[in-house]
Amino acid sequence: MSLLVVGSVAFDSVKTPFGEAEEVLGGSATYFSVAASFFTPVSLVAVVGEDFPDKDVQFLKSRKIDTSGLERAKGRTFRWKGEYGQQLNEAKTLDTQLNVLQTFWPKLPEKFKKTDIVFLGNIDPDLQREVLGQVEKPKLTALDTMNYWISSKKDSLVKTLKLVDILIINDGEARQLSGETNLVKAAQKIRAMGPKILIIKRGEYGALFFSKKSIFHAPAYPLENVFDPTGAGDSFAGGFMGWLAKTRKFDDANVRKAIIMGSVVASFNVEDFSLNRFKRLKYPEITARYKAFKRLTHFENL
Amino acid sequence: MSLLVVGSVAFDSVKTPFGEAEEVLGGSATYFSVAASFFTPVSLVAVVGEDFPDKDVQFLKSRKIDTSGLERAKGRTFRWKGEYGQQLNEAKTLDTQLNVLQTFWPKLPEKFKKTDIVFLGNIDPDLQREVLGQVEKPKLTALDTMNYWISSKKDSLVKTLKLVDILIINDGEARQLSGETNLVKAAQKIRAMGPKILIIKRGEYGALFFSKKSIFHAPAYPLENVFDPTGAGDSFAGGFMGWLAKTRKFDDANVRKAIIMGSVVASFNVEDFSLNRFKRLKYPEITARYKAFKRLTHFENL
Repeated sequence: MSLLVVGSVAFDSVKTPFGEAEEVLGGSATYFSVAASFFTPVSLVAVVGEDFPDKDVQFLKSRKIDTSGLERAKGRTFRWKGEYGQQLNEAKTLDTQLNVLQTFWPKLPEKFKKTDIVFLGNIDPDLQREVLGQVEKPKLTALDTMNYWISSKKDSLVKTLKLVDILIINDGEARQLSGETNLVKAAQKIRAMGPKILIIKRGEYGALFFSKKSIFHAPAYPLENVFDPTGAGDSFAGGFMGWLAKTRKFDDANVRKAIIMGSVVASFNVEDFSLNRFKRLKYPEITARYKAFKRLTHFENL
Repeated sequence: MSLLVVGSVAFDSVKTPFGEAEEVLGGSATYFSVAASFFTPVSLVAVVGEDFPDKDVQFLKSRKIDTSGLERAKGRTFRWKGEYGQQLNEAKTLDTQLNVLQTFWPKLPEKFKKTDIVFLGNIDPDLQREVLGQVEKPKLTALDTMNYWISSKKDSLVKTLKLVDILIINDGEARQLSGETNLVKAAQKIRAMGPKILIIKRGEYGALFFSKKSIFHAPAYPLENVFDPTGAGDSFAGGFMGWLAKTRKFDDANVRKAIIMGSVVASFNVEDFSLNRFKRLKYPEITARYKAFKRLTHFENL
């Protein structure tokens, strides 16, 4: 199935206890697209500036990512600068320059309008709704958001939530959106807002999945070397949605597999800066780590 | 198999966002014993003061806990007072009165000396070694400790670690003991100190198990109502060791089952203050929640 993503393409400057990277390719839609591209072709909708080099466009194209929805606007590409402490669990944002993202108004190329599966990356909920309106009859829609939109545009976000099947957010955002500290209660409230499925990302502690009948927990893979957590959440979403697009089944058993695939892909992404680990990642490594997740979590019945 | 525990018996005063409890029965050895008693008889070695009421002794006895190693000393029973914030993840200690614990020197009743399985609860590592020396030929030994002993008595603790099979500590303690932030690296360093098996407790995020060949992750059960996390770690250890004592197998598959049993028992304990939930807990509820853990974590092979 076809998979469309709208979100940010950025240049990141990142410092971790293990090194630093200056102005490297990043952004939520970039991590999502490349992660998903291990499973399915991707249609990318985003904006970059005049400074965005052709080699990065070529890299995306080389990954079966259709860049005809990648608008090149006057001005500079979005920039983010952040730093992680010793435990790598939370980024401290040092600088954000929206640049061309400030006036971004997504317009889908004609051929993108028949997409089956849509991922609305973390952008203004007005724009998320705008994109959704341009897709003719999506079979499955998912959405990411962040604390900024929850506090500054809650009404618009709540409107958008009514229209999507899946919400993927982190635990802090789930608490903020629902007003509940307890995640089980938070999930009930959020699912009542619209999305039948809620996935709560908990960084190094994995992810929780809530549907009407089922709760599922996926751990994060215990890695000996974590270099840079930037993009882990977007890579998770990309692996998750990519697997669903590849396999075309949305039942409980396959959604659980998809969550593990998201976790697998995210676990590779954090092993190097930017998209470097993805650039040398091979599919057999993905299936091998899926099996490792099975060994990590398996226990016998009584 | 017989299971011996040495640790503290206390009166706790606890405040959580959901209520408070004054001078209720608590202590690491108490939670451990009652949790383990769902699976096996327990031999308790601890000290209480003259103020310890007979009804609490009778309660322990009613749970198949042999209290002949429960010394009654001159003075007052150990007291702990703590408070939890909205997220319930960490207790703020408001007051600690060691009282009779200050001069505690454990002496094992003759019949306890042939115990097969020994759990050295969180007390002075000198005393832990003293207890271990009094047991004739234990088949399996496990140890708990805390930040206080890691910083104030590290040499003694390292000596004790050489003598035990299993270490059960939380993530902060694992980092402190090893000097490593990354838990996989921390586990390697700690296992090199002696214990073949390391279990790292992560509170609401579950537990990680490390052996020579295997890593296993158990989540905490996502509960809608958590009242009081006090004793969760000790209940986990009690369920874990109790299961091993009941089943008498120490292979990887059964240790994984034991970790889930520990998680099951701990998940009940936090549903009420003190040992109240354990007082009304029935074995079929335990097996039902074990199955719920299976549903929570299960995903199919590729």
